[in-house]
Amino acid sequence: MRIKLINPNTTQRMTDAMARCARAVAAPGTDVIAVSPPMGPRSIEGHYDDALATPGVLMEVEHGEREGVDAYVIACFGDPGLFAARELARGPVIGIAEAAMHAASVLAPAFSVVTTLGRTRGMVWHLAQRYGMERFCRNVRATELAVLELEVPGSAARATILDECRRALDEDGSEAIVLGCAGMADLCTQLQDELGVPVVDGVTAAFKWCEALVALRLHTPKHGEYARPLPKRYAGDFDRFSPR
Amino acid sequence: MRIKLINPNTTQRMTDAMARCARAVAAPGTDVIAVSPPMGPRSIEGHYDDALATPGVLMEVEHGEREGVDAYVIACFGDPGLFAARELARGPVIGIAEAAMHAASVLAPAFSVVTTLGRTRGMVWHLAQRYGMERFCRNVRATELAVLELEVPGSAARATILDECRRALDEDGSEAIVLGCAGMADLCTQLQDELGVPVVDGVTAAFKWCEALVALRLHTPKHGEYARPLPKRYAGDFDRFSPR
Amino acid sequence: MRIKLINPNTTQRMTDAMARCARAVAAPGTDVIAVSPPMGPRSIEGHYDDALATPGVLMEVEHGEREGVDAYVIACFGDPGLFAARELARGPVIGIAEAAMHAASVLAPAFSVVTTLGRTRGMVWHLAQRYGMERFCRNVRATELAVLELEVPGSAARATILDECRRALDEDGSEAIVLGCAGMADLCTQLQDELGVPVVDGVTAAFKWCEALVALRLHTPKHGEYARPLPKRYAGDFDRFSPR
Amino acid sequence: MRIKLINPNTTQRMTDAMARCARAVAAPGTDVIAVSPPMGPRSIEGHYDDALATPGVLMEVEHGEREGVDAYVIACFGDPGLFAARELARGPVIGIAEAAMHAASVLAPAFSVVTTLGRTRGMVWHLAQRYGMERFCRNVRATELAVLELEVPGSAARATILDECRRALDEDGSEAIVLGCAGMADLCTQLQDELGVPVVDGVTAAFKWCEALVALRLHTPKHGEYARPLPKRYAGDFDRFSPR
Amino acid sequence: MRIKLINPNTTQRMTDAMARCARAVAAPGTDVIAVSPPMGPRSIEGHYDDALATPGVLMEVEHGEREGVDAYVIACFGDPGLFAARELARGPVIGIAEAAMHAASVLAPAFSVVTTLGRTRGMVWHLAQRYGMERFCRNVRATELAVLELEVPGSAARATILDECRRALDEDGSEAIVLGCAGMADLCTQLQDELGVPVVDGVTAAFKWCEALVALRLHTPKHGEYARPLPKRYAGDFDRFSPR
Amino acid sequence: MRIKLINPNTTQRMTDAMARCARAVAAPGTDVIAVSPPMGPRSIEGHYDDALATPGVLMEVEHGEREGVDAYVIACFGDPGLFAARELARGPVIGIAEAAMHAASVLAPAFSVVTTLGRTRGMVWHLAQRYGMERFCRNVRATELAVLELEVPGSAARATILDECRRALDEDGSEAIVLGCAGMADLCTQLQDELGVPVVDGVTAAFKWCEALVALRLHTPKHGEYARPLPKRYAGDFDRFSPR
Repeated sequence: MRIKLINPNTTQRMTDAMARCARAVAAPGTDVIAVSPPMGPRSIEGHYDDALATPGVLMEVEHGEREGVDAYVIACFGDPGLFAARELARGPVIGIAEAAMHAASVLAPAFSVVTTLGRTRGMVWHLAQRYGMERFCRNVRATELAVLELEVPGSAARATILDECRRALDEDGSEAIVLGCAGMADLCTQLQDELGVPVVDGVTAAFKWCEALVALRLHTPKHGEYARPLPKRYAGDFDRFSPR
Repeated sequence: MRIKLINPNTTQRMTDAMARCARAVAAPGTDVIAVSPPMGPRSIEGHYDDALATPGVLMEVEHGEREGVDAYVIACFGDPGLFAARELARGPVIGIAEAAMHAASVLAPAFSVVTTLGRTRGMVWHLAQRYGMERFCRNVRATELAVLELEVPGSAARATILDECRRALDEDGSEAIVLGCAGMADLCTQLQDELGVPVVDGVTAAFKWCEALVALRLHTPKHGEYARPLPKRYAGDFDRFSPR
Repeated sequence: MRIKLINPNTTQRMTDAMARCARAVAAPGTDVIAVSPPMGPRSIEGHYDDALATPGVLMEVEHGEREGVDAYVIACFGDPGLFAARELARGPVIGIAEAAMHAASVLAPAFSVVTTLGRTRGMVWHLAQRYGMERFCRNVRATELAVLELEVPGSAARATILDECRRALDEDGSEAIVLGCAGMADLCTQLQDELGVPVVDGVTAAFKWCEALVALRLHTPKHGEYARPLPKRYAGDFDRFSPR
Repeated sequence: MRIKLINPNTTQRMTDAMARCARAVAAPGTDVIAVSPPMGPRSIEGHYDDALATPGVLMEVEHGEREGVDAYVIACFGDPGLFAARELARGPVIGIAEAAMHAASVLAPAFSVVTTLGRTRGMVWHLAQRYGMERFCRNVRATELAVLELEVPGSAARATILDECRRALDEDGSEAIVLGCAGMADLCTQLQDELGVPVVDGVTAAFKWCEALVALRLHTPKHGEYARPLPKRYAGDFDRFSPR
Repeated sequence: MRIKLINPNTTQRMTDAMARCARAVAAPGTDVIAVSPPMGPRSIEGHYDDALATPGVLMEVEHGEREGVDAYVIACFGDPGLFAARELARGPVIGIAEAAMHAASVLAPAFSVVTTLGRTRGMVWHLAQRYGMERFCRNVRATELAVLELEVPGSAARATILDECRRALDEDGSEAIVLGCAGMADLCTQLQDELGVPVVDGVTAAFKWCEALVALRLHTPKHGEYARPLPKRYAGDFDRFSPR
Repeated sequence: MRIKLINPNTTQRMTDAMARCARAVAAPGTDVIAVSPPMGPRSIEGHYDDALATPGVLMEVEHGEREGVDAYVIACFGDPGLFAARELARGPVIGIAEAAMHAASVLAPAFSVVTTLGRTRGMVWHLAQRYGMERFCRNVRATELAVLELEVPGSAARATILDECRRALDEDGSEAIVLGCAGMADLCTQLQDELGVPVVDGVTAAFKWCEALVALRLHTPKHGEYARPLPKRYAGDFDRFSPR
């Protein structure tokens, strides 16, 4: 089984870290393909970054279909391009916000999301609502860490995140933590050990759910809303994205 | 990894069928323990049956904790005893309605549930609401088949279910089917081939999700709502259920 | 008219107190039958206790049908077995959480529930949602009193509850209090006098609503979701619960 | 105990019929005061009629406070002036749509409202939403009977209503009927006998619920949203409505 | 184009202020007719005032229809008589709470309402829910200023409102302010300059939206829920309101 | 005042038609700038087209900021890039689905959307939910016309749309129509005349609402969720999109 992990931002070190996390939990026989698109934002910290990361994500899904990929993980907590990607893919496509929230909701009565910048809180609430997870989400908490600070060795980022998780448990009445950025995947196990409650990283949660759905031979329906894009020419230098 | 499949009804043939389905998709190294409780209804077709199936389910979870079980599937579409079971278990506990609805919601924009008796439709809607899946569920359709008819070789049950699935796709605008009874697990692959849309069986969906969550070392939080039951003596012949 | 008050826990002193409260407000000609089941938990403080209290509740409803009971009150704030009981009963069956929330919602724009242990807060929110009362419920506040402490003469329980009610009015913007435990029925009038806002005890609220519905000749519909359980043999020592 | 039944329209024959229905189910010792306001619409069939019926309703509540009334029923299915009336009254004030929907929701899993003119369907849905009863209400069905046709002896109104109730049960999946007009109170028992499901008339449902709440010494909170109107002079010929 | 601004209270100074605000933003060719009804409350501070202001509002709409008015603004934040007015008018009728909330929701991800008396907070939440704006409304904050205090020259009202707006931005996570009283229209521009976020006054927001809808030839549908009131005689001194 | 109408697809004839519609209703002194992006899909008929249309939309907004544009209309019924565009713009940005649904909700109690391809129905429902308009939207009806068929002179498209509108009024209980494609703007007046109910075209509705908000000096808040994108380099050939 081939599962493609698409990091929508173009920071290769983050892509490599995700790949390591996924491989550490992969079942025997699962190939992990981890990529960043060739173009787009180096980090995704708002609606504009999210929109401009999407074409690259879709390009990687389209390549994946030719590479025989069985399922896709979109590994940024805004789940950019999720529904468009489903139009391209035969197999399942899961976003990491989607997977993490769903998993948290079957483990604990309520969770808090701990994320990076406050300006993205609205996006997370919107996703929670979109996925039906609003009632399980008690709070979305920002650490005001920039995404790429998470990558700086020796930074105080880990301590800041741990503190915010503790506040979530104390003040929100939550009983689980959802990590609101793919760049936090590394920290998951350690945070869980320190906090004593489930800490859900979306990258691995989405990856393992993909594995499960592929094993069950479940796919994306190719009639209706997620049918292949209708063939047409795109104008200008987006011609290369034209669906055929 | 040990995953315990609890069939809340006491019909062993159904338990055996579920075990077969689970084993067919199990990862290497996963042990499937499939049981029916020693007491309770032979089939679950309403709130009363559901309530009386619950003590047996909980007894099996309590045994499971002593047997080193890592996760539990509650394999009846009413998910009887789900929240109580979470108080007993350290690992994840997933109901089959829960797993099937969550899976369908990440595959397709909307699904219909095809179930047995019309009198259970309200229970299914209630679960959809409880899990946040209401917006994805377009309809709950009853075939008016009794649960145990599904077990009768040569019956018309399969044709009846296939017809109802077709109506769901035509009339409800759904793009996936959720099978609303553990006794339909057997039919899943064949229905999917005939219908050309995802057909989700909760038994295998819950089983594989359990495998995934255990691989991720995720558990049920043991503070708060799902903490162990407080120790106390139960009166009368329920003394054996007394939490310690 | 015969109304049966079922205390789902097996603490007779609490049953007796409820009976006194109900008799104090009963209309002339109403018989109050107050019972605890012969088996089950002495107090209900979580999902597991709730699940194991349910069979006893159902046994008492089944007896009630043979005794000519006209309506039933399920007198524990988790409303255990409510929907299953409706399958057994011809007359109305009302839970005390249900009655108290409905009554509070027609008296005041918003209420807070003051309950015992924090671990049950999630159950109360779930009931509020189930009954459509979520928008009226501003908060569910735990006193962290164990249910049976309410029974200890001379305890500080009353003062603790009064304090929590005051905080509810000050901090939640609520204008009524719902008492979140049948064991608090005794305190209702006194709290109302001290607080100057409606304080709703579910035991008496459910009891009087039952009286009203019986006077109106309203009953539980016996087709559809609340039809009698289908006759079948239950396995093992639950054979005695087999519906006929 | 004195309970005042306010028919917001000025058709005395309808007021008399309601009074008869209420007295037939009143507890010993309950006085029924039934009135129509001295001014306003003869029947209420839309938002405008509803708005112009409200001042008369409020005048009757204000009189009631001086007459020692313990609780009020607002006996038109639009519940005109309900929240304003609560500002005037010390005791409970219940609308008939409110009472009927709440009662139906504790008897049956879902109900349909059968009302008069189609143009009022939106008002009923809005009330259902306002009271938290939206999830229990499957449909609002119009018979296109004018309110006063219900009063014409020998009319086909009863047959038309019965037919619409039957369609509600067959087509909506409802298991109870709520009568959507005070003028239908008379028909309630007969319809229930013919249909075999609960048929809830709001006039008597509200009346008995008032009796119950008064017996429980529950009142309307007089701080906050339902505090007495602030004293002020009203201009022009509405001076007589000036709150003092 | 003629747009009629109806101030539901009878304080002429407030009506004049609104007219000034509307004229300051009117397009060339738009006539502003600003009136108070001849009867009713001098200020609207609760459900009772709101109900008694409604007949005067409706009288002014009825006059407007004979004066060739193209659209109406109901200029009190409770939007009294909005739905009834739509039955009378051929053109659009917009309430100021309605217009302000809609406008704020397309400018900012979330807003807070800053209003006068705390007792009206519930009414505002109800309107937010009625209009679908609940998810955008983070808080409704009361200054505890009486409506007419806003009119007193040299009062501290402006400073109090500014403080409450600041708290809304700091504590609620809102990014826009909705002014919750027509009497605050005057302050809008100044507050916006001081706060640096959009401050929406409903009077001008409704007025400009009316202009836009009239320019688009959009009207109120005259079949169905907002059809003309059915002709009938009203009893007593409300005969003058009888719809013809 | 300068208002920029961005047609997210690259079909110039459609852009020209929109410009004509907008100019026909523009206030004196309003400049209409109507553009299609230089790259992207010729028509937008699904999530993938929508995602690939977004970069072009954002490029046009960024240009607009340098051209002194006061407000923007995103003129495709999927409202592509709406939230990202708000990060770029100082003035208001309104989508045509957003404007049309809001306008319809203040005119009529309920509307139906009549759109092109069935595969986009889910997107429309999602937008209705996102904007709080779900409760006003009774149905989303597809004509199965391709977007560009609307442009073919002499086609049967108009008749097909009229038929679907009629069915919406008859079968959905709607009292207004929302046209679900910018390509239908031309037909709006004629359809309204034939149907006798409000027919809302989003292009002109958004355009006039923009005019109104600009006249009121209302803008997009530039702190928080819609703050300017954080400056960063984008990789590859998306470098030109890098926010500065």
